[in-house]
Amino acid sequence: MSKPYVLGIDIGGTNTVFGIVDARGQVVASDSIKTRKHSNFDDYIAELHSEVSRLLKSYDAENQIQGIGIGAPNANYYTGEIQNAPNLPWGNGILPIAEMVSKAFNGVPVAVTNDANAAALGEMTYGAARGMKDFIMITLGTGVGSGIVVNGQLVYGHDGFAGELGHVIMKRNNGRVCGCGRTGCLEAYCSATGVARTAREFLEIRTDPSTLRNINIEDITSKDVYDAAVAGDKLAKEIFEYTGNILGEAFADMVAFSSPQAIILFGGLAKSGDLLLRPLREKFEQSLFPIFRGKTKILLSELKESDAAVLGASALGWEAKFRYEVPGASFNAAQAAPTVSVPATVAPADEA
Amino acid sequence: MSKPYVLGIDIGGTNTVFGIVDARGQVVASDSIKTRKHSNFDDYIAELHSEVSRLLKSYDAENQIQGIGIGAPNANYYTGEIQNAPNLPWGNGILPIAEMVSKAFNGVPVAVTNDANAAALGEMTYGAARGMKDFIMITLGTGVGSGIVVNGQLVYGHDGFAGELGHVIMKRNNGRVCGCGRTGCLEAYCSATGVARTAREFLEIRTDPSTLRNINIEDITSKDVYDAAVAGDKLAKEIFEYTGNILGEAFADMVAFSSPQAIILFGGLAKSGDLLLRPLREKFEQSLFPIFRGKTKILLSELKESDAAVLGASALGWEAKFRYEVPGASFNAAQAAPTVSVPATVAPADEA
Repeated sequence: MSKPYVLGIDIGGTNTVFGIVDARGQVVASDSIKTRKHSNFDDYIAELHSEVSRLLKSYDAENQIQGIGIGAPNANYYTGEIQNAPNLPWGNGILPIAEMVSKAFNGVPVAVTNDANAAALGEMTYGAARGMKDFIMITLGTGVGSGIVVNGQLVYGHDGFAGELGHVIMKRNNGRVCGCGRTGCLEAYCSATGVARTAREFLEIRTDPSTLRNINIEDITSKDVYDAAVAGDKLAKEIFEYTGNILGEAFADMVAFSSPQAIILFGGLAKSGDLLLRPLREKFEQSLFPIFRGKTKILLSELKESDAAVLGASALGWEAKFRYEVPGASFNAAQAAPTVSVPATVAPADEA
Repeated sequence: MSKPYVLGIDIGGTNTVFGIVDARGQVVASDSIKTRKHSNFDDYIAELHSEVSRLLKSYDAENQIQGIGIGAPNANYYTGEIQNAPNLPWGNGILPIAEMVSKAFNGVPVAVTNDANAAALGEMTYGAARGMKDFIMITLGTGVGSGIVVNGQLVYGHDGFAGELGHVIMKRNNGRVCGCGRTGCLEAYCSATGVARTAREFLEIRTDPSTLRNINIEDITSKDVYDAAVAGDKLAKEIFEYTGNILGEAFADMVAFSSPQAIILFGGLAKSGDLLLRPLREKFEQSLFPIFRGKTKILLSELKESDAAVLGASALGWEAKFRYEVPGASFNAAQAAPTVSVPATVAPADEA
């Protein structure tokens, strides 16, 4: 029998990365297309299908894909749709991506979820959360995302949108305006852009010297703050302290919710090392409800950043349920032929 | 075949209430003992066993108990123990209650959990959460407790202590000291005692008239505040407004975590009606992350307060796993005889 693979697709605001992944979590082949090349979603799916098919063919794996997992902003696991994703180029509507991808791939089962949930699945299947049944994945990038695993299962909530921990409120008075339209969200402080905002605030309010003052204040990035802190700049270090403190307090509240074995950090800011982790862990322990102290680890992702998104999405592929129904022919990977044209109905497939 | 029952036991700081419950959620018989009568835990268990046996005998249900569910403060579902419960009279150690009760009842399977989790189970099995797979139970009593259900399962966390939502931090600066030793906890504001504290604060800081000023300030209870508000006292109404606002903000953060279909209120304060619910619901909707707006209901428990604790605990009885192993005889309700004495080993029973 031929070796089984899944396909992982990570749809980001700029690039769509896809990879063929084996059962041991090896990305055996991968490639990408530009997400914004087509303003028409059908054209995008057609190019994605054509490029993925090319990759599958080059790897001689055309008939061995058991399922397709897709991570995308605002993707809803239950409905198989991308719903109102402002950072994608296809407008503010409903995109039935699971149905369309399954159709393009002739009925291969598809599952979708948002990028942070995909990261959590990847970590659980292949990374730092292997063997854990209760953990929280926090992605510290341009925004703050989260994927929550309880009892070995991703928490989707009743509507498919659970796990928006970047938008718990950390400052209830005079909080920063957040991209979501409210004020005081964790994301407004502890994302990469939040760190840059903290830098601007500190530089404006305070008068102590800092090498950050050599940069045009509007252009400062979290990377600049990191570089300055590594070089010993006191103010830059305090920015990480401030960021770590807020994360530590936020994480303590998360533990009161689901008492996870670990909170796992992923994304650019997570690579700041002890600059962020020391204050974070200290504040976290201090802030915990007493019965939780000393129990929950703060860990870093163990997935290679370049692979993580695809691996995470692919992990979903093994349990994909949504598929385009080919009348008179139940799905069989080995029989799949890419040219069959069938009417548009989608049904959750039976349990594999 | 004789009708199957479960036994629900609710261990409170003052009373231990127990009831025989049938498969349709009817409490067919119930009684109680005083929790604090015995300072020795063995004596307490012996009296509990004797009184429960009397009740079972009077109802002719001695051999029909399929399982025993126990709700108790700091009870750990995983270990079957009560761990360091300051409000119970048996000291600050570990009480292997599941083992001891199963032993007393000759190997009947037992499950334990804390009181708020038991309430959530009761609501899911017999009350307002029937048919829901994702909801949060909030108990507003002397303290604020919570039981969280995700994907149809109670959230226990990696250590059995998940769901301490009374101890998320609502005021990060100059917050009230909480019984847990930290400051700013939800419970310090929105429990019955929290409402009384708010009353004292308002009366001390402000000068406007209130009928609450006729009561000795140290003696004011949440019931006094309720009575005054119902009678039209403006300051008392504002106390409920203040309490509802904080609950609404807290609930919005909880939705960002698990996106529940409903948050269900139980306990004395929940009976304040629109005095509490109107500001709560208003602030809740305003505070939600946009994609969650208009989706999550704030509901009141549908269980009769006198039955709720026993019903909740009993719901756990149907899936009880912990049992005292009687060598050479697998558990069989119909064969159970209360006098067999066996060595002390406890093992999780096989799946029913």
